Amino acid sequence: MTSSVKAMVFDVYGTLFDVHSIQSACEKVYPEKGLEISREWRLKQLEYSFLRQIMGCYQPFSAVTRDALRYVLKELQLEGGREVEEELMNAYRSLHLYPEVKEVLKELSDKKLAVCSNGSRDMLLPLMQTCGLDSFFTHIVSVEDVEQFKPSPGTYAFMQEKLGLKKEEILFLSSNGWDIAGAKSYGFLTAWINRGNLPPEELQLAADFIYRDLRSLLDQQ
Amino acid sequence: MTSSVKAMVFDVYGTLFDVHSIQSACEKVYPEKGLEISREWRLKQLEYSFLRQIMGCYQPFSAVTRDALRYVLKELQLEGGREVEEELMNAYRSLHLYPEVKEVLKELSDKKLAVCSNGSRDMLLPLMQTCGLDSFFTHIVSVEDVEQFKPSPGTYAFMQEKLGLKKEEILFLSSNGWDIAGAKSYGFLTAWINRGNLPPEELQLAADFIYRDLRSLLDQQ
Repeated sequence: MTSSVKAMVFDVYGTLFDVHSIQSACEKVYPEKGLEISREWRLKQLEYSFLRQIMGCYQPFSAVTRDALRYVLKELQLEGGREVEEELMNAYRSLHLYPEVKEVLKELSDKKLAVCSNGSRDMLLPLMQTCGLDSFFTHIVSVEDVEQFKPSPGTYAFMQEKLGLKKEEILFLSSNGWDIAGAKSYGFLTAWINRGNLPPEELQLAADFIYRDLRSLLDQQ
Repeated sequence: MTSSVKAMVFDVYGTLFDVHSIQSACEKVYPEKGLEISREWRLKQLEYSFLRQIMGCYQPFSAVTRDALRYVLKELQLEGGREVEEELMNAYRSLHLYPEVKEVLKELSDKKLAVCSNGSRDMLLPLMQTCGLDSFFTHIVSVEDVEQFKPSPGTYAFMQEKLGLKKEEILFLSSNGWDIAGAKSYGFLTAWINRGNLPPEELQLAADFIYRDLRSLLDQQ
């Protein structure tokens, strides 16, 4: 990491919290289907957020996430209904924090720390507050305020405006390849937290740094 | 179908041609991996087109398709390289036409018939011409001319402008749920060709008609 960095902006879903920790809640309702539901649900959630951004039909991420769940249950021919939806949507508000997150954030107190999430406040705030993560950040930014989804340039611009810094003073961290591409395309410095040990996306927008998890941030200081 | 329809606009990939007929070409190069490559390749191709639309980083669909192939081969830890890429990209120019397409199009000669595809001309025209499908259509429209990807409203607006008709005089047909959502959101009449027997997308943009394949168009006349 370069010394010019004045703020670090973290994505939330997949980067700080494990979206696939939802699997056990899914498994409880649908035995032996937890893994498949969790995987398909995440893919559909992302697809719907991308499509809504392209069509100009914004809906809060909580609505998008519920729609995605409803689709996936129908696709897998599983019985849904309001009660199951509520249970699984609630589980999305208590995803597991990755184990190293707090210890790393504690060591980064010389920087401004922020989050920038596609999550709407009704999902994002309970998630952050339940595990006491909210206190680490000066800015908890939801794209809900601009009614756009990442990787739209407007979301990164909104984040920059909130921080009042130059693009090159902001290090944007995400484990989502599409989010890194969007942040890089906008002009931020980027660190891809490659938790899944995946190949880089073929979008000609390579991350400036690639880390296995957040611990590497401490080695780089 | 209502009698007010003056033009029928068909999507190409998945609607007229079976994108998964690529499987046998993949299988030839990578035995026992054909199905997985074909499925992942299509998903990544769509994801990259959506992301490029959102980020405002248009590249022709042929480049997007090649990038997607390159990613998938790396993800599946398969050896790629220029020669394999050329072979599989060429196979994408000779996808199988669905069996009923020509017989149905012949019967629809009282309407203006058009195609509107995310495909760039270097992919789309060889595909249409090789099987003699181009002669059925008055307009073969590639989004390349507006440098946007469906389901962006700009692509459907471009199609409408080419036809010179009112929105409600245009029936848009696609087997891709996201394409139907985009066309419906723009204001076209829509027919979802539900070849995969899938549940409708949960995007609150339901198709006006749902058909199992194109034959149903003749029953409805």
